[in-house]
Amino acid sequence: MPLHRFYVPKGLYTAGDKAAIAHAITDIYAVAMPRFYVAVFFVELEPENFYFSGEPAVNFIRIDVDHLARQFTDEASKPKFMARYERALEPFTKARGIDWEIQIKDNCDRALWHENGLLPPPANSVEEWIWKKENRVVGPAEMKALKAKL
Amino acid sequence: MPLHRFYVPKGLYTAGDKAAIAHAITDIYAVAMPRFYVAVFFVELEPENFYFSGEPAVNFIRIDVDHLARQFTDEASKPKFMARYERALEPFTKARGIDWEIQIKDNCDRALWHENGLLPPPANSVEEWIWKKENRVVGPAEMKALKAKL
Amino acid sequence: MPLHRFYVPKGLYTAGDKAAIAHAITDIYAVAMPRFYVAVFFVELEPENFYFSGEPAVNFIRIDVDHLARQFTDEASKPKFMARYERALEPFTKARGIDWEIQIKDNCDRALWHENGLLPPPANSVEEWIWKKENRVVGPAEMKALKAKL
Repeated sequence: MPLHRFYVPKGLYTAGDKAAIAHAITDIYAVAMPRFYVAVFFVELEPENFYFSGEPAVNFIRIDVDHLARQFTDEASKPKFMARYERALEPFTKARGIDWEIQIKDNCDRALWHENGLLPPPANSVEEWIWKKENRVVGPAEMKALKAKL
Repeated sequence: MPLHRFYVPKGLYTAGDKAAIAHAITDIYAVAMPRFYVAVFFVELEPENFYFSGEPAVNFIRIDVDHLARQFTDEASKPKFMARYERALEPFTKARGIDWEIQIKDNCDRALWHENGLLPPPANSVEEWIWKKENRVVGPAEMKALKAKL
Repeated sequence: MPLHRFYVPKGLYTAGDKAAIAHAITDIYAVAMPRFYVAVFFVELEPENFYFSGEPAVNFIRIDVDHLARQFTDEASKPKFMARYERALEPFTKARGIDWEIQIKDNCDRALWHENGLLPPPANSVEEWIWKKENRVVGPAEMKALKAKL
């Protein structure tokens, strides 16, 4: 679940920057869900392949986010999440003097989402808590054993 | 139509693996629709550009699927399709001991979909059958001639 | 806002072609909204990473478009926009004898969209007109000053 695609000019971020961004994003979600649900990747583009305002983008990043594991339950939660996300990215966006655009798509259909071939457990269920604690997919047989020990 | 984006660690799959995956996916859809509707591609990412669980992903793939030509008509058809898709990928996922995540997005709007500048024919129409048989876009003039010969 | 992703075979387009495509697309939107809202990029794929009809795609492009700043208000406006878009791309698609597929996704949620950390102004507002005229994000303090001068 959340999938964070960063389209960035090649060379804008160092390897250390990118690891730090991925870490900061993962931390946002890890409060509520398994850490391994979070995927972040960077597609680095040469100026001839990346245009912003019709001109080669050398100082602009575009962030495309898909949410799956949770849906926003009300409108008030959206600006709150956006603010938290912006804060996490601030050292790599505003503080760098670049332009950046963020879009989150909130169109989850849990029936069409699999982790290692399995439907992930319902949000906030005991099973999800176990996936979170183990930080990996736990199959039905092992799940039964782990639940018996609770 | 169906668009299958594979985000994979660079070097995880050989060229032969990738061709076999594309073939297996295309076969799933080719029963019902033109083979050329199916696009599959691989974006290969270096560890510094691909994060899973906040760490560089070396053994994880993320599959992002867009459906356009058909929409799921009921909930029961979703797990059936997911199972078929997982079976097709099994030699390249479970059998390899990797982690993998699949998301299918089922938000087709046929008015906003073109093949070679044309609106594709309605699902299961004679015209679609002709596109399928020819495995290419057939324009209006040629379509008229081909239908006359049926 | 509109995000135009071109998945293309490596080498199909020159740098000049790509700049011209980005320019033509940006011009379509610039009539109605800030030019800098438009992002266009090209992901160039080797034949072993790009499949069309189950075979390596050497003469096919896939265009994936996300709309955010405007939603289609009626069905009649969709074919009109598609026609305008096709006309802009024609020198790089039909005129080149390639196959191409276009999908536009019209699922904007303005609460989940930020430019430089800010919610963009409402469509067709004075504030948006100022962003358009300046062709950049104008923050609240500067906005107040600029509006006072109108």
